[in-house]
Amino acid sequence: MDKGLFSTIDETIHAKARLGIMTLLVTQGELDFTQLKQKLGLSDGNLSAHSRILEEAGYIAIHKTFLGRRPKTVLVGTPEGREAFLAYLNQLESILKVAKTQSD
Amino acid sequence: MDKGLFSTIDETIHAKARLGIMTLLVTQGELDFTQLKQKLGLSDGNLSAHSRILEEAGYIAIHKTFLGRRPKTVLVGTPEGREAFLAYLNQLESILKVAKTQSD
Repeated sequence: MDKGLFSTIDETIHAKARLGIMTLLVTQGELDFTQLKQKLGLSDGNLSAHSRILEEAGYIAIHKTFLGRRPKTVLVGTPEGREAFLAYLNQLESILKVAKTQSD
Repeated sequence: MDKGLFSTIDETIHAKARLGIMTLLVTQGELDFTQLKQKLGLSDGNLSAHSRILEEAGYIAIHKTFLGRRPKTVLVGTPEGREAFLAYLNQLESILKVAKTQSD
């Protein structure tokens, strides 16, 4: 079993809440803050903190806009974020392959 | 997408180092501390801390024995640990299915 199989897991994506955010944004395109909060069952604070980490990594972009006079925050995955996420999924697949074949 | 898909991920297993420990113990049976350290590229402190979390969750057992006069620590997955790990793998598979089908 390759030593790097686990150590190279991208922690920026791996954390539960961030894995949820990236999965939704890569699979469903842009979503607003409220949609993401409801779909993931996260608190405002939690979603803000995790989104900031993804934004600082360059994996998502956060756009502050207005709907009429109401502020609206929209999150969207970046091309780098999509690429990192697909690479992360491949890593998960290799782990699953190793774990499933040898634990049956 | 089911809200619980991410929130119900078992954090005890999900953390990178612990995912490595559980994968090795469930797929390869019991391993000693040094073997695990080498296979995962973890420090003594890191491996001890993560093993303790898994032991407290009842997912692994840690046996302190002696090889001649040299202390030897052996770690082994428990039946509960194996069951939790297989359930965790199924969750990963569902996430992968959702993420892969909709991001192609």
